[in-house]
Amino acid sequence: MHSDRIRLASLKDKIVSADAAAEIFRDGMVVGMSGFTRAGDCKAVPHALARRAARDPLSITLITGASLGHDTDKLLAEAGVLGRRLPFQVDTTLRRKINAGEVKFIDQHLSETVEQLRSGFLGKLDVAVIEACAITEDGGIVPTMSVGNSATFATMAERIIIELNTQVPAALEGFHDIYLPAERPNRQPVPLTDIGQRIGSTSIKVDPSRIVAIVITDQPDSPSNVLPPDEETAAIAGHINDYLLNEVRHGRLTHSLLPLQAGIGTIANAVLHGLVDSPFHDLTMYSEVLQDSTFALLDSGQMSFASASSITVSKPVYEQLIENVEKYRSRLVLRPQEISNLPELVRRFGLITLNTALEFDIYGNVNSTHVGGTHMMNGIGGSGDFARNAHTSIFVTKSIAKGGDISSVVPMVPHVDHSAHDVDILVTETGLADLRGLAPRERAATIIENCVHPLYREELREYFRAACKRGGQTPHILEEAFAWHTRFQQTHSMLANQEHEVAVV
Amino acid sequence: MHSDRIRLASLKDKIVSADAAAEIFRDGMVVGMSGFTRAGDCKAVPHALARRAARDPLSITLITGASLGHDTDKLLAEAGVLGRRLPFQVDTTLRRKINAGEVKFIDQHLSETVEQLRSGFLGKLDVAVIEACAITEDGGIVPTMSVGNSATFATMAERIIIELNTQVPAALEGFHDIYLPAERPNRQPVPLTDIGQRIGSTSIKVDPSRIVAIVITDQPDSPSNVLPPDEETAAIAGHINDYLLNEVRHGRLTHSLLPLQAGIGTIANAVLHGLVDSPFHDLTMYSEVLQDSTFALLDSGQMSFASASSITVSKPVYEQLIENVEKYRSRLVLRPQEISNLPELVRRFGLITLNTALEFDIYGNVNSTHVGGTHMMNGIGGSGDFARNAHTSIFVTKSIAKGGDISSVVPMVPHVDHSAHDVDILVTETGLADLRGLAPRERAATIIENCVHPLYREELREYFRAACKRGGQTPHILEEAFAWHTRFQQTHSMLANQEHEVAVV
Repeated sequence: MHSDRIRLASLKDKIVSADAAAEIFRDGMVVGMSGFTRAGDCKAVPHALARRAARDPLSITLITGASLGHDTDKLLAEAGVLGRRLPFQVDTTLRRKINAGEVKFIDQHLSETVEQLRSGFLGKLDVAVIEACAITEDGGIVPTMSVGNSATFATMAERIIIELNTQVPAALEGFHDIYLPAERPNRQPVPLTDIGQRIGSTSIKVDPSRIVAIVITDQPDSPSNVLPPDEETAAIAGHINDYLLNEVRHGRLTHSLLPLQAGIGTIANAVLHGLVDSPFHDLTMYSEVLQDSTFALLDSGQMSFASASSITVSKPVYEQLIENVEKYRSRLVLRPQEISNLPELVRRFGLITLNTALEFDIYGNVNSTHVGGTHMMNGIGGSGDFARNAHTSIFVTKSIAKGGDISSVVPMVPHVDHSAHDVDILVTETGLADLRGLAPRERAATIIENCVHPLYREELREYFRAACKRGGQTPHILEEAFAWHTRFQQTHSMLANQEHEVAVV
Repeated sequence: MHSDRIRLASLKDKIVSADAAAEIFRDGMVVGMSGFTRAGDCKAVPHALARRAARDPLSITLITGASLGHDTDKLLAEAGVLGRRLPFQVDTTLRRKINAGEVKFIDQHLSETVEQLRSGFLGKLDVAVIEACAITEDGGIVPTMSVGNSATFATMAERIIIELNTQVPAALEGFHDIYLPAERPNRQPVPLTDIGQRIGSTSIKVDPSRIVAIVITDQPDSPSNVLPPDEETAAIAGHINDYLLNEVRHGRLTHSLLPLQAGIGTIANAVLHGLVDSPFHDLTMYSEVLQDSTFALLDSGQMSFASASSITVSKPVYEQLIENVEKYRSRLVLRPQEISNLPELVRRFGLITLNTALEFDIYGNVNSTHVGGTHMMNGIGGSGDFARNAHTSIFVTKSIAKGGDISSVVPMVPHVDHSAHDVDILVTETGLADLRGLAPRERAATIIENCVHPLYREELREYFRAACKRGGQTPHILEEAFAWHTRFQQTHSMLANQEHEVAVV
C-alpha cells in the first residue's frame, strides 16, 4: 500500500522505524516539523523522539507551523526535549512549562517565522520532519491536511525525515499550491489576484538526496475541539450578521461580502455557521484554517471557494471529507502559511477578519494571549497578520467568563497583542461596537454601552468618567487601570460586589 | 510667472484669492489637504479658512497626509475649525486641544487612511486642497515636496482647490510617481520590484471640471526642526553601525545592507548621518520622509537611490535642493504614502527600519505616542507600517529624559503602539539589545543589561527578579507595573531616590 505512494523508487530503501529516525536528532539542533492547528502534524517521529530522550536526553529548538495534535507537545515537553519552541502551541503541559520559564517560547506572527529563518535570525535548520501523503517521481513531497511552514522547512533543512501517512487519501494530491517567495530584496510580487488561483506546484520540490528517512504511519489527525454554538455565540453571530447586512444596505459591501478570515475556535466557527441562514451568497474564504463551518457553507452552496493553510475539523466532518475528497477538489486549496497569512494578500483582497480576543479594553486594545497579562495561553497565531491588514477587523469574545468573575472588557488590558489602530469592530453577546472613524473617547463610550456585561457596566462607566477628568487622548487612571486584574488575583473575582448572581451562565 | 504653470488654459479663470476659496467650505464637511511631515502643505487656504471661521464658525473633519507646517494646525484649532483630525499632527496647540478632548483625533497607520476613505468608513470626501507646482495640459496636478494622500484626495473629492506655489521649482515635475491601487477585491499586485522603478504618472490625473479654485502662493515649506547630533545620538549611531557591520561579517547582510527606512526626528537622522563615515556603499532608502541625512548620503555617493513620500529638510538643505533639482532627478522619487508605506512593499524589499520610541518596556513593547500612557504626543505615523513588515525592526531612544527624571525603559509601557512581536532591536546610548530569536525572559535580561541608564538599572533588575518569582511567559507585578509612571505624576521624577546627579545631561 505505502509502496505505491513512494513514486521515486530510490527512496524506498529509506524506510525506517520511527525509533530509528529519532536517532537522527542531536542535542542543540533546530528542527522544523509539519503541523498547523493540529492538522498534518507528524504522529510517529516526535513520539519516538520523546521515548529516546527518556534514556538519552537532548534539547532542541522546535519550530512548527502552529499547534500540534496527538499530545506531541505534552510528550516532548515532559521528556525535556523542548529547549525552545515557536511559533504557537495549545498544549496544557507545555503551557505550564512555558509559564514556569522552563521552555523558552517565542510567540510570533505566523506569517513571519519563515522570514526569520531565511534571514538567519533563528540559526541553521538541521532537520525537517514532514507528514506526506505521497512522494512524487522526482522526490516532491505531497503534504496532508496542512501546508504550514513545511515547504520552507523542507527547502532549508540539511536533512529531511518524511512521515508517510497511508490513512490520508492519496487523492489529496492536487489540493496544495506550493509557492514560496524568493530571497529579498529581489523578490517579485506574489502573483495571486484571485482566491482560487494556483500559482505554485502541487508538491514540495526538494533534492531527494536530503531525504534521509521515511517513516510509515496511519493515524488520522486529532479532531478539532471546538464546542457547539450556544446562546452567547448565537447572539454574537446575530450581531455580526446584522452589521454585515447593514453594510450591504448602505452600499459599502455586496451580498458576496469580501473574502472572509476566521481564527480557530468556538466563537469564530459559530459566527461562520450563522452565515448558513443568511442571505449572503458567493462567499469566499481566505483564511489560515478551515473549520466545520467552512464545509457547512461549501455544502449549503453559499460559499464558492475556500483557501487556507490547514483543515481542522471534527471527527464526523473529517470522515466525510476523507470519503468525498473529489467533491471539494475544485473548491479548496491549501497554501503555505506564509501565503495564507501574507499581509500583501490580506490587504490586496481586502479581507473581513474575525478573531477571538481573550479580553479587550475600553479603547479597543486587544489581549489575545496572556491570562492576567503574564501567563501565555496559546499565542497570537495569525491574528496579527490578518487584523492589521484587513478591510474590516472584527474581534469577538463573550462578555464574561468564569460565571461572571471575569469581565472580558476591562479598563486597560495588561498585555496588548493588537493595538486599537487595528481593531474596527468589537462584539460580545451583549452587542456590537462599531469603532470605525471614532476617536478614543468615542470608542470608549461605544464599547462600554454595547459590549460590557451589565454586571460590570456601571463600574466601567465610572472609571471612564473619572479618567476623562484627568484628560488625555486616551484617558486612564494608571493606579487603578489593573484594579480588576489584581482584585481577581486576590479574590478570584473581578467584581467589586461579589454578592452577584449571574442568570445567563 | 504662474500663468506658465497652468498649462490647461480653461483653468486660468479659476484663479481666486485664498479668502474666496475659503468660502467653499461648509460646516460638517470632510476635507483632505496635502501635506506630509510639514512638506508640500497648503499655505494660504487653511489660514484663510481660520480667518473666515472667526466671523462665520464652522467645524470640519480634516484629513492630511501627516503633519502640517506654518502653524496651520494651531490656527485652525484656535479658530475651532477642527472637529475631527487625522491621521497625524505635531502642533502644540492642537495637541493641547486633543488631550483636552476638544478635538477628536484619530491616530492611524499612515498607509491606511486612504483605504478607510475608499471603504466608506470616513464618509464622503467633500473638498481636497492640494499644493501643486504645475497643472498639466490635461489638468494633471503636479505635487510639490510631498505626495502624501494628495492623489487619493484629488481623485475622490467632489471639489478640488489647488494652491499653485510659484516658489517651488517647476522642474520638480518628473520627481513624483503617482500610482494608486484599484478597488478591492479585484486589486492587482503593486508592480514595484525595484526601489528606483516608476510605475505611475508624473501628475495626479483628475477631471479638470472638479477643480473649482486655484490660489497662487509663494511661500517655502516650514524647515525641519531636527536637532543636530549630540553625544547620545552619536553613541546610538555607533551601536547601530557596529550591529550592521557584525551582520555583514556573519554573512547575513552585504555592505549594501537592505533598503533603509528612518522615521522623522533627531535620532533617526543622526543615525543615518553616522553612515556617512561607514564602509557601507550602494545604499538605498525606501522611507516615508527624506531628511538632511539622506542628502548627505546621496552627496557622499554612499546612497544610490532614495524613495519616499516627502522631503523635509533644514533651510540650507532645502535651498540647496531648490537650486540643484537636476542633480537629484535620477536618484529620487516621491510616491503616495500608501505606496511608500505599503506593507506589501516593506516586506517584499525586506527593509531595515529605524523608528523612535517614546519609551519601551523590559519585554520590548514600544510606546510611540502617549506621554504617561494618556496624552497624545504626535501619533504612530508610519512606524507600524514599517516595523511590522520589516526585515529588521529597530527602535531607538535616549535612555533618560528630563535630566534623568524619566527613564525611557520602564517595567511596563502604559500604552502599546508596537507589541514585542514587531521589535527586533532596541538601542539607547548605553547599548544595543539584539532580541532576535529570544523568549520574553531573555529579552528582558538583554534589554535591562544593555539599554537602561545606570540610574534605573538596579531597580529594573529587582522588578524583573520579583516578577519572575510570580511566573509566566511575560512576568509582571501588575500592582507595581506603573509605579514609575505614577511616581512621576506625584513627584515629577521616576526615581525612587531623587538625590541623584546626572553627569551626562
